[in-house]
Amino acid sequence: MQDFTFHNPVKILFGKGQISSLAQEIPANARVLMTYGGGSIQRNGVYEQVVDALGDRSVIEFGGIDPNPKLEMLIEAIEIARANEVDFLLAVGGGSVIDATKFIAAAVHFEGDPWDILAKRAPICSVLPLGTVITLPATGSEMNRFFVITKEVTQEKIACGNEQVFPQFSVLDPETTFSLPARHISNGIVDAFTHTVEQYLTYPVNSPLQDRMAESILQTLIEEGPKTLAHPTDYDARANVMWCAAMALNGLIGAGVPQDWATHAIGHELTALYQLDHAQTLAVVLPRLLQVKQDSKYAKLLQYAERVWGLSAGDEKSRIMEAIELTTQFFESVGVQTRLSHYGVDSNAGQIIAKKLEKQGATNLGEHQDISPSDVEKILVMSA
Amino acid sequence: MQDFTFHNPVKILFGKGQISSLAQEIPANARVLMTYGGGSIQRNGVYEQVVDALGDRSVIEFGGIDPNPKLEMLIEAIEIARANEVDFLLAVGGGSVIDATKFIAAAVHFEGDPWDILAKRAPICSVLPLGTVITLPATGSEMNRFFVITKEVTQEKIACGNEQVFPQFSVLDPETTFSLPARHISNGIVDAFTHTVEQYLTYPVNSPLQDRMAESILQTLIEEGPKTLAHPTDYDARANVMWCAAMALNGLIGAGVPQDWATHAIGHELTALYQLDHAQTLAVVLPRLLQVKQDSKYAKLLQYAERVWGLSAGDEKSRIMEAIELTTQFFESVGVQTRLSHYGVDSNAGQIIAKKLEKQGATNLGEHQDISPSDVEKILVMSA
Repeated sequence: MQDFTFHNPVKILFGKGQISSLAQEIPANARVLMTYGGGSIQRNGVYEQVVDALGDRSVIEFGGIDPNPKLEMLIEAIEIARANEVDFLLAVGGGSVIDATKFIAAAVHFEGDPWDILAKRAPICSVLPLGTVITLPATGSEMNRFFVITKEVTQEKIACGNEQVFPQFSVLDPETTFSLPARHISNGIVDAFTHTVEQYLTYPVNSPLQDRMAESILQTLIEEGPKTLAHPTDYDARANVMWCAAMALNGLIGAGVPQDWATHAIGHELTALYQLDHAQTLAVVLPRLLQVKQDSKYAKLLQYAERVWGLSAGDEKSRIMEAIELTTQFFESVGVQTRLSHYGVDSNAGQIIAKKLEKQGATNLGEHQDISPSDVEKILVMSA
Repeated sequence: MQDFTFHNPVKILFGKGQISSLAQEIPANARVLMTYGGGSIQRNGVYEQVVDALGDRSVIEFGGIDPNPKLEMLIEAIEIARANEVDFLLAVGGGSVIDATKFIAAAVHFEGDPWDILAKRAPICSVLPLGTVITLPATGSEMNRFFVITKEVTQEKIACGNEQVFPQFSVLDPETTFSLPARHISNGIVDAFTHTVEQYLTYPVNSPLQDRMAESILQTLIEEGPKTLAHPTDYDARANVMWCAAMALNGLIGAGVPQDWATHAIGHELTALYQLDHAQTLAVVLPRLLQVKQDSKYAKLLQYAERVWGLSAGDEKSRIMEAIELTTQFFESVGVQTRLSHYGVDSNAGQIIAKKLEKQGATNLGEHQDISPSDVEKILVMSA
């Protein structure tokens, strides 16, 4: 096992009707900026529950946050927060709304260009406290310190992590997600699955508990994912997927083990250039990346084949290929296609992205820092 | 899945040489009360590492804390902390030292008889901050809010949980445990195993992720426990057991599921009356409790038999009995005996403890609150 620091202070309030806990979790005299997305919360009753729980606190709203939240729009939110002397942020929505809100929290008291927080890893000092009501199980942002922001003008999408932007609390009520379009749930399953794989399918460091916990999440997603798509109002299936999504990226399964994250790095470029959903990029990249890197991931791929997919007979190489094929089939079975052509992306995408990564200096991807731009091109050509 | 709140803010610093992190984790101007046990830390180099890391901070020491820490002794520590205006507590030792230190943290600013914190669940307001250097993987106290204190004069042993006594941080360096006597490691394996079972072997509530994570801990203890006993300085084996012990009782596997804890309740009485080690009492009680409650635990016992012990053939009742037998054998194989007679406890212990529990009003043990004093007597007679 590798040495590690693990720290996750997020308080999770999980279950039916937990939105009412906001009344206890947010200071009674708080000046709240409530952030949300396209307005689905106004149709599914979540908005009303939140407003009820906030009672007579001073609340300013900032809605309309898009998937892959854009710097340009968030600058406006930062100015509103400053002008109104907001002292608590409440994100109500999916990973994009929460990511955006973490960025706002870091930026309100930041002097200078807020983009530097991402692009230059500029240190942040005073961060606004935030809480979340997560209405889309996917990114795990409700229980971690990460946020990803896009700068539209330069087509850059940058991820950042900072201890100071952990939500103080997150409300996870599976019932708030019943009315989501299937596409969001499909994406969430693939996102949580890939988060887990990025922290698991690397090389062995004698960490049996972390391995088994990662396998637990993968097995549960394989089992519960199709159930929750077939029966969107089955409370337990949705609750299980929702808890998997939070556990997949809260730091726990990644503590003390190597991590990959090349699939995410390549995927972010696909989203920035071709506007694919985040999870669609993961479904496109991951299987072929596993195929290209199968030698350096050999031992863990074999373990994955056996423990997650039950493949223990036949020669090792075939088991590995079958496990990758089953992964591809799983993504497609939950409704996320795995070929670039399906999304209308040109066959030269590999070349373009490889060049872009090279220009950014991102030439050392993966747990061995050995995924080169030409590997990236190869992966994307195979995913055509 | 049941509704739940999960919150665990403990920062874990895991690995070789992590004791040096104390220099960053404890305020530079802190007045520290350093608590420890029988002095083994002075022989194995831990004391020196801690003193080095604390630098020129003002440090008062309170050593000699026994296993099953006694109220009578801790009153003295509380008075020392008050007299010296201590503002940070550092526990260096095993679960008993950490439990004692949590109690001291809660009691220093408590007005009235500190025993009321346990016996009357008296509310505590201002708690001293604490950190730990855990040198014995077992109780999980380094990553939770629980503490157990014994009042010698009345032979009472009471457990308590409070959000305010979470350690701010815990240092887990497996190397600090290499010199422990085998008996402590054996006990730690049984303790962590039983903590997991208390939160797992109840009844199904459709919580596949929690179930699999619990099974992950059990499987890892079964695999790594014998390794670390055979090779005490095998870093990875010890690290894996150490991480299992913390994960077994940090709230995670118990989130959203029913919990039992009858084995612990009965075990505490055995320790209070007959001075058995905590883990010895668990090894005595758990297998027979599972046997007596097999009907109400049927579905989960069957799952345990299959997933943890690989028993999927034959009739269900036999599988369950074999899983219980394998549990017994596992405890004995790691060096903890499972019969009261082995510890020289009279055959009338069942009767005495059943009466004592009845007198305390503890007549509703277990996840169904249906373990009666006569069940307790039956369990202990079967464990004779």
